[in-house]
Amino acid sequence: MRLTRYTDYALRVLIYLAVRESDQDRATISEIAERYGISRNHVMKVVHQLGRLGYIETLRGKGGGLRLCQQTTAINVGALVRQTENDLDIVECFNPAGTCPLSPDCRLRGILGEALDAFLTVLDGYTLADLVSNRSSLQTMLCLPTVTPTRGSAQ
Amino acid sequence: MRLTRYTDYALRVLIYLAVRESDQDRATISEIAERYGISRNHVMKVVHQLGRLGYIETLRGKGGGLRLCQQTTAINVGALVRQTENDLDIVECFNPAGTCPLSPDCRLRGILGEALDAFLTVLDGYTLADLVSNRSSLQTMLCLPTVTPTRGSAQ
Repeated sequence: MRLTRYTDYALRVLIYLAVRESDQDRATISEIAERYGISRNHVMKVVHQLGRLGYIETLRGKGGGLRLCQQTTAINVGALVRQTENDLDIVECFNPAGTCPLSPDCRLRGILGEALDAFLTVLDGYTLADLVSNRSSLQTMLCLPTVTPTRGSAQ
Repeated sequence: MRLTRYTDYALRVLIYLAVRESDQDRATISEIAERYGISRNHVMKVVHQLGRLGYIETLRGKGGGLRLCQQTTAINVGALVRQTENDLDIVECFNPAGTCPLSPDCRLRGILGEALDAFLTVLDGYTLADLVSNRSSLQTMLCLPTVTPTRGSAQ
């Protein structure tokens, strides 16, 4: 069982922006892709959706780049996962187009739905601030300079 | 987020055997594949593992076939899912071979691990008997004759 790579990368981009923020300059897609060793194309798609969802903003041109446009304490992990997972169909029968003959009265669906709710409820209890509470450790691992916390940071 | 098709099919095979059981004859792989409209090859692989895990037994030759070799109340859904999911790596960082630079000290891992535990804990509360408590409805949907409950049935 796994979350999509898309959700994984969305969380990583948000973590990056939360620990990287600086008054001097902004993060870029290439920089994030390079630090995580992941495809620039994937990061671009994730950034596009995170922008559309109102989590980050992109300033174009010289001095442009990405930054969070919400406080880390306002970005809820459960809400984000609900938005970035393209489906939460644990098994085929969650999808109306599924073909399992048991779908009309399958107890499995209810039980897996209950389990999924429990999974998401745990995530609802955390925000991006919790993910970056070890800010200086994350900065070291991402080879970022230690910066003074600014707007949107966790500390 | 989804369970593997493998787990989905394992649960369906167990449901089938639990509602189909008859003293007259045994279920076959072809019959299960046909009733669910899924590949015979997939069912064969699932049946093989379910046999190896001690959930079902196969009798070869004339009159042979498949049947449960545990009571439905003894087959725990959480335990089964833990056995049939080839990994429970919600995101890359759960895998020691993952390459995310944050892995050494990532809070996300702990939070997702907590959520996964909550998911599985819900499933631990159910057995195959719960999945087939609507036995006669399932028999109708699977085009099976209504049979007298026998060993291993839910009722």
